[in-house]
Amino acid sequence: MRSYRSVLEAIQLGELSVDEGLRELSQSAVEDIGFAQIDHDRTARRGFAEVVYCEGKTPEQSALIMARLAARGESNVLGTRATREVFELLKKEVPDAEYDDVARAVVVRRGEQASLGSVLVVAAGTSDLRVAEEAALTASLMGSHVERLYDVGVAGLHRLLRQLDRLRTARVLVVVAGMEGALLSVVAGLVDKPVIGVPTSVGYGAQLQGLTPMLGMLTSCVPGSSVVNIDNGFGAGYLANMINRLGEA
Amino acid sequence: MRSYRSVLEAIQLGELSVDEGLRELSQSAVEDIGFAQIDHDRTARRGFAEVVYCEGKTPEQSALIMARLAARGESNVLGTRATREVFELLKKEVPDAEYDDVARAVVVRRGEQASLGSVLVVAAGTSDLRVAEEAALTASLMGSHVERLYDVGVAGLHRLLRQLDRLRTARVLVVVAGMEGALLSVVAGLVDKPVIGVPTSVGYGAQLQGLTPMLGMLTSCVPGSSVVNIDNGFGAGYLANMINRLGEA
Amino acid sequence: MRSYRSVLEAIQLGELSVDEGLRELSQSAVEDIGFAQIDHDRTARRGFAEVVYCEGKTPEQSALIMARLAARGESNVLGTRATREVFELLKKEVPDAEYDDVARAVVVRRGEQASLGSVLVVAAGTSDLRVAEEAALTASLMGSHVERLYDVGVAGLHRLLRQLDRLRTARVLVVVAGMEGALLSVVAGLVDKPVIGVPTSVGYGAQLQGLTPMLGMLTSCVPGSSVVNIDNGFGAGYLANMINRLGEA
Amino acid sequence: MRSYRSVLEAIQLGELSVDEGLRELSQSAVEDIGFAQIDHDRTARRGFAEVVYCEGKTPEQSALIMARLAARGESNVLGTRATREVFELLKKEVPDAEYDDVARAVVVRRGEQASLGSVLVVAAGTSDLRVAEEAALTASLMGSHVERLYDVGVAGLHRLLRQLDRLRTARVLVVVAGMEGALLSVVAGLVDKPVIGVPTSVGYGAQLQGLTPMLGMLTSCVPGSSVVNIDNGFGAGYLANMINRLGEA
Amino acid sequence: MRSYRSVLEAIQLGELSVDEGLRELSQSAVEDIGFAQIDHDRTARRGFAEVVYCEGKTPEQSALIMARLAARGESNVLGTRATREVFELLKKEVPDAEYDDVARAVVVRRGEQASLGSVLVVAAGTSDLRVAEEAALTASLMGSHVERLYDVGVAGLHRLLRQLDRLRTARVLVVVAGMEGALLSVVAGLVDKPVIGVPTSVGYGAQLQGLTPMLGMLTSCVPGSSVVNIDNGFGAGYLANMINRLGEA
Amino acid sequence: MRSYRSVLEAIQLGELSVDEGLRELSQSAVEDIGFAQIDHDRTARRGFAEVVYCEGKTPEQSALIMARLAARGESNVLGTRATREVFELLKKEVPDAEYDDVARAVVVRRGEQASLGSVLVVAAGTSDLRVAEEAALTASLMGSHVERLYDVGVAGLHRLLRQLDRLRTARVLVVVAGMEGALLSVVAGLVDKPVIGVPTSVGYGAQLQGLTPMLGMLTSCVPGSSVVNIDNGFGAGYLANMINRLGEA
Amino acid sequence: MRSYRSVLEAIQLGELSVDEGLRELSQSAVEDIGFAQIDHDRTARRGFAEVVYCEGKTPEQSALIMARLAARGESNVLGTRATREVFELLKKEVPDAEYDDVARAVVVRRGEQASLGSVLVVAAGTSDLRVAEEAALTASLMGSHVERLYDVGVAGLHRLLRQLDRLRTARVLVVVAGMEGALLSVVAGLVDKPVIGVPTSVGYGAQLQGLTPMLGMLTSCVPGSSVVNIDNGFGAGYLANMINRLGEA
Amino acid sequence: MRSYRSVLEAIQLGELSVDEGLRELSQSAVEDIGFAQIDHDRTARRGFAEVVYCEGKTPEQSALIMARLAARGESNVLGTRATREVFELLKKEVPDAEYDDVARAVVVRRGEQASLGSVLVVAAGTSDLRVAEEAALTASLMGSHVERLYDVGVAGLHRLLRQLDRLRTARVLVVVAGMEGALLSVVAGLVDKPVIGVPTSVGYGAQLQGLTPMLGMLTSCVPGSSVVNIDNGFGAGYLANMINRLGEA
Repeated sequence: MRSYRSVLEAIQLGELSVDEGLRELSQSAVEDIGFAQIDHDRTARRGFAEVVYCEGKTPEQSALIMARLAARGESNVLGTRATREVFELLKKEVPDAEYDDVARAVVVRRGEQASLGSVLVVAAGTSDLRVAEEAALTASLMGSHVERLYDVGVAGLHRLLRQLDRLRTARVLVVVAGMEGALLSVVAGLVDKPVIGVPTSVGYGAQLQGLTPMLGMLTSCVPGSSVVNIDNGFGAGYLANMINRLGEA
Repeated sequence: MRSYRSVLEAIQLGELSVDEGLRELSQSAVEDIGFAQIDHDRTARRGFAEVVYCEGKTPEQSALIMARLAARGESNVLGTRATREVFELLKKEVPDAEYDDVARAVVVRRGEQASLGSVLVVAAGTSDLRVAEEAALTASLMGSHVERLYDVGVAGLHRLLRQLDRLRTARVLVVVAGMEGALLSVVAGLVDKPVIGVPTSVGYGAQLQGLTPMLGMLTSCVPGSSVVNIDNGFGAGYLANMINRLGEA
Repeated sequence: MRSYRSVLEAIQLGELSVDEGLRELSQSAVEDIGFAQIDHDRTARRGFAEVVYCEGKTPEQSALIMARLAARGESNVLGTRATREVFELLKKEVPDAEYDDVARAVVVRRGEQASLGSVLVVAAGTSDLRVAEEAALTASLMGSHVERLYDVGVAGLHRLLRQLDRLRTARVLVVVAGMEGALLSVVAGLVDKPVIGVPTSVGYGAQLQGLTPMLGMLTSCVPGSSVVNIDNGFGAGYLANMINRLGEA
Repeated sequence: MRSYRSVLEAIQLGELSVDEGLRELSQSAVEDIGFAQIDHDRTARRGFAEVVYCEGKTPEQSALIMARLAARGESNVLGTRATREVFELLKKEVPDAEYDDVARAVVVRRGEQASLGSVLVVAAGTSDLRVAEEAALTASLMGSHVERLYDVGVAGLHRLLRQLDRLRTARVLVVVAGMEGALLSVVAGLVDKPVIGVPTSVGYGAQLQGLTPMLGMLTSCVPGSSVVNIDNGFGAGYLANMINRLGEA
Repeated sequence: MRSYRSVLEAIQLGELSVDEGLRELSQSAVEDIGFAQIDHDRTARRGFAEVVYCEGKTPEQSALIMARLAARGESNVLGTRATREVFELLKKEVPDAEYDDVARAVVVRRGEQASLGSVLVVAAGTSDLRVAEEAALTASLMGSHVERLYDVGVAGLHRLLRQLDRLRTARVLVVVAGMEGALLSVVAGLVDKPVIGVPTSVGYGAQLQGLTPMLGMLTSCVPGSSVVNIDNGFGAGYLANMINRLGEA
Repeated sequence: MRSYRSVLEAIQLGELSVDEGLRELSQSAVEDIGFAQIDHDRTARRGFAEVVYCEGKTPEQSALIMARLAARGESNVLGTRATREVFELLKKEVPDAEYDDVARAVVVRRGEQASLGSVLVVAAGTSDLRVAEEAALTASLMGSHVERLYDVGVAGLHRLLRQLDRLRTARVLVVVAGMEGALLSVVAGLVDKPVIGVPTSVGYGAQLQGLTPMLGMLTSCVPGSSVVNIDNGFGAGYLANMINRLGEA
Repeated sequence: MRSYRSVLEAIQLGELSVDEGLRELSQSAVEDIGFAQIDHDRTARRGFAEVVYCEGKTPEQSALIMARLAARGESNVLGTRATREVFELLKKEVPDAEYDDVARAVVVRRGEQASLGSVLVVAAGTSDLRVAEEAALTASLMGSHVERLYDVGVAGLHRLLRQLDRLRTARVLVVVAGMEGALLSVVAGLVDKPVIGVPTSVGYGAQLQGLTPMLGMLTSCVPGSSVVNIDNGFGAGYLANMINRLGEA
Repeated sequence: MRSYRSVLEAIQLGELSVDEGLRELSQSAVEDIGFAQIDHDRTARRGFAEVVYCEGKTPEQSALIMARLAARGESNVLGTRATREVFELLKKEVPDAEYDDVARAVVVRRGEQASLGSVLVVAAGTSDLRVAEEAALTASLMGSHVERLYDVGVAGLHRLLRQLDRLRTARVLVVVAGMEGALLSVVAGLVDKPVIGVPTSVGYGAQLQGLTPMLGMLTSCVPGSSVVNIDNGFGAGYLANMINRLGEA
């Protein structure tokens, strides 16, 4: 939505009819395709196109929405939690679509690839890579330079400590950890930059499919961090890029 | 901790004895007062002095730790969840200590009051003010210019929408909400800046002392936000300032 | 059950024998088919035939019960959570049975299709359509005129606001939403009609298979709404029709 | 909010300046008193004035907001979860304010007392009366004729069955029950009208402060009912009146 | 409720008018005192008078209901979770009322004190005595001979094993245990009689106010036992007596 | 274990050697087959042979244990949660083994079929039959006469009330119910005999795989009932028989 | 319990009468004081006298049990969760009883003070001291030499790392931590000795009164540790001493 | 990590260059293979090589890491939760790798097989064997002599009591139990050695996939025990060996 005032002034000046104003106020940016109302205004409003969460949609629905977004060509298009089937369907319409196996994401590159500061994605263990890669891909696709630091869980603290310089030169950090998620507290205690915690569902029993590291990260004794949903690499990458962008202004 | 390399080089060059090196590496910044090891290095390492969480400590312990931090005079001192009793004890040692009734915090102003960009603290209802004010005080004390937008819960959406310009000019937003916490999703959907959600324990029954808005904020359908612990105004203000500072660099 | 008094008076007047009275009081409306006691009295007592919840029954059991209800011909017959196998079995006995793929329901149309007022089913995202369609089908089958407003989640608020007129002309609203379920509060705050919230299990992690939006909807800061079970489109449609019917009286 | 179109047309016609239009669009109905933004538009938008939830507010805040609402004189004013102290403060400003000890509510009667159809409040036990009376007071204050049927828990089913006629002549029913909350299913199975379940926190141990009847009511095997938050008599009464009003149209 | 048939036959025979029949069917046994409907029929229907659960009722309400039950004089009267204040109020009306400090119960002895078989109440620790005594008092008051075996938790198994004969001669056992509640499994494995488990809220942390032993007792690896609510000594004593009575038939 | 005294006296009298006494005290009744220690003493000690819970064991293990128990020939042998594969394996060794498809149980009849009093198994819906049949089979196999009353959930209360006589003539009742489990409270309120509640996992969403009816049954407002684990038809049938047997003594 | 064989042989030899044997087998070590059965055999069987958990007992009960244990004079006596009132009562009987304010424990020193190896109690923050001191007191009282390392939470990792030598020379470690409990993983990763984690209830919101660190410690990514109940300093100290003692053998 | 001091002194003495010192301090022991950083230092630091948790890793990743660890040849290599596919892949590289079907573990024997004291693994039922065998294999592989005592659940207490001598001669005990986990309390009450509880997910319904025995074991009324994660046989065996080793020193 652009500001109410500018639309109203245009109408007062006769530059806009009432019906145009109405459309301007809310409608132009929405494309109704029956089962979905595509939010084409999102790039302007939020800085990145609508991202398609493919789980729970049929492959046809996911592919169709992404094809429409790609057709606008305003910014990169991202489909998360996408099966290969979604990708195959989309590729027929959008031949330059790509698929990332580890991150389970479909990508169509459309916006320019600005390279902002540096986001560091830190992962506790090899089992956390899917989520870490989803975060890295998302931030990268939205314009951030991304570095990776993997398998540095607190069981072998020296693996992390020897990378202190890399930790401290990043502008924003994403910490991906399953089990008890202690890595977030340890990392946040070593840097003076924002740290985004992503609990993962890696573990069993009392790990409660990720609830335990999620709760642990939320009650971390170290300030300067915040938390996104379990396994939500996308959300962490999106937010990391948003913060990173601030450092460029 | 400064980098390992610089300490080792200094020892090699004879600029530092082994014992000095050891101290340099880890010890100088810690003051041991028996029941606590005060982390005087934190200003250098993390950009702000150790913040004292007063709950669970005796008033005497809280006051003593804050007095020591104030004596260093390196940055502002903050004690959260502090009773008035803590304040009274501290005041005897540090006459310019202040007490904030709403935020339940003790403050000693020592660092310069830089004024960075703008953090907007948004609160859903009047009952959320204690937490909102803790966030505002913290961010302000650490150097951020803070604005407030209170009582704009989604029950009367127009109260929020008429403030769209204020929402969109902030560099970082903190959204404080109890009940179901829907305000985070609504605000995050309207701006293109990082939004930090603070669920509060305001509500009853199925609100589960804040677990419900916490879980809701974590599963928000709008990316660009992250979450801190229930009622953790301090953590939100701390992180907001950290992000805000990036925008100055 | 008809009123006790009328049965007793008939017995006093000799119009009914004791045994007839006993049957009248409780038995006539129940057909015992071994594994089930079909409640044929329900149309009279509750305004709609017994609805068959097919999950947990064998396909044979489900089909048999629906065939018996259809044979009474008193009102439309509805089987929810039905597999296609149930439908195929039923079709052999009841050739005009229909199957709704999205709502996963079997239908036999028997009652007249009265068209009462208007129920508006609002769904947050494309992934919520199965539940939304179950609600729409149920209300429609029971006599309500049903309208649909889909994919209007709070991430793009203008998609919802531009439909304000449709929201405000409905007599009853059903809001179907997964993730954090914030849509219920937003919609309920915009209308002065009853709103029924249906949390869905769409989401992951902290969404807890729908518990999070369920709890959120229950603690909504906006009065005028109430909640049914997770994914219970049927219950919402049933209740919406019941309320809608009041508006006709 | 009145419809966007009418405001825009008035501006086009010169009947409204841009600034007036802006105010018209969103601002006029909001009174900013610092810690709260009073939503005076709510009577028009939702059919009843903003209701003040007093818990978590200081008594002074609660009393001030209610005094402002009373001053508008547009409809009855209701403050829930109010202590007697709130009442005493308000009374100084609004001498005809009333206090209901059982429902813990403050009332200022301002709107006319329309008497719509009939809402029946059913309570399982004597311990549930506080919640039941909050529901009854709310619905009554908003214009409904309210009847009460108390202490009819399922432990003595005949107490309920002998009142079958009263159950069946109500237009909307509110069922208030603690313990396991079985009363909702039993009542909903006997009537063909909407039933609103209010779980209460009455009980101990596995009752989990009301979570158990809340969950039980949500999974009731009887359709035609929905649920509000634990102990939320206000929400049930509000919704019951909203539904009841439909029957008058 | 007496059987439907006998009432109907009496009406047919003219022995009963319709109105008498109606009353006979459901009403005679209920005394309406405004906030409560006293179920005087319960002695006939269930073998013991209505028991008054005093928590959540005002002392006046509790005392009044018990006074009415005592006035019927049909069986012993029991008020559980009663404060001394309830007792003092009741005593003014019913001078022979008694108060049991440990079990927190008020008693009026009216029925004859039949002495059936033997119920053995086993308690794990001294902290569980309040609940154990509530069970013992209840069973005793309803006619059972009650024996006690206290402080025989599994930490010192020989304290229990040396009482094997007492365990094996009881007709029904009630096992009261907090902490992890392991005593139920151990006792049930040693006897061939029904064992009723009562989890108590004795413990802290992971004991979850009794949820842990409750869940543990429900998943006991030893069949022949069942469970009542946390701290529900009354329910266990009531059921134990009911079972014990069977052994007399 | 027989009583300590009798063994010791036999030793003193020279009737038993020390080694015989040791065996007598604990060992004779246990057969060690490597992965299991079969408890052949259980018939004597607890009145029925060890029952084999087949889930989590390999089919070979289950079949072998049951074959050993059958070889003793002392009482009927029961294997619960058994797949058909277990049955096929067992049949090779024990040709007269039987399989019950609905109850998922393997049976070998060895003890005499005493017919004690009457256990009534009441089930709320058709989906609860597996659990109900497990209860019925178990009680029957252990010597009880079993009656069944199925599909009498509270949604159609008259289906239950017309069977009042059957409810009241049973000596023990087992109530099997999923959804919210309200049937337990209703049944227990109508009879003066012990009622055992079996919550089932039938339902979805807020039903929480049976936790909701389990919690509801535990907090039932009607005394005289107790609860076993979710879907534990076996435990209920075992206990019902144990209680039923008391009525024969 | 001494071994069955030795008792039986003594009886066979006529050295013991049957009654003496019975007593020998189980009874001699138990002193029955009505509400409690004091387990005097525990020193022999488990290496330390019965420890009295005072919560839930009346002060009189607690004091009486401890006085009896002290009278035996076999080992030190410990009462945990004891109020000062318990201490005052006990002191009248046992003048050399002591009270530890921080650990909330009553102590009577009776056994000799052996000094075994070294137990290191590590605490994350000042707020965890009560629990840490309970652990330290318990282990010390049972014979272990105890060292303390307090306020070394992971927020300032260098405070811990500079104490690496102390961490590595301990024979057993107890790690006491609230908030998210990450300290356990960090410490366990640095040493090759058993580490016992004690989660504390220090924190708020998502800390869930200690459940979060408890779950986190249980799912720690570092092996070599185990966990006791929330705030259970006693249990940790008891176990640490038990392990420490092994190192002496 | 060796002590800081020794590295610094070596640098001061010129025995080590700065770069060597840096490597010495932290890096030499880490092998970076892209997706993982293998912690070769762990044998020195913690007494056993890094153990590979195979769940969540691809078979290729698991096999590669183990092959690298085996190549070092310093100690036995263990991969837990390994599928047979992992084993087949590893075998190509390491022909003497072994697979344990019951414990689901891959083993490469490299270290010498020291035989320390005795660890006793006690399992409640046959269904718990997978977890028990994981514990036994782990402890054995790390150097402990391991004994097994299986199928001694509390349902037949004499099966356990007749093994009292074996219980009491072990140096450390691991108790593996599902259902309600009562076996831990019973065993811990009989011995004076450390007991490690391993709750298993064996059971259903209220067993909550192992949460119930986990919570029960944590709240055990018997001190001297501690708990590891659900089904974590590996963690229990690892810790048992660590404690056992103390007894050798």
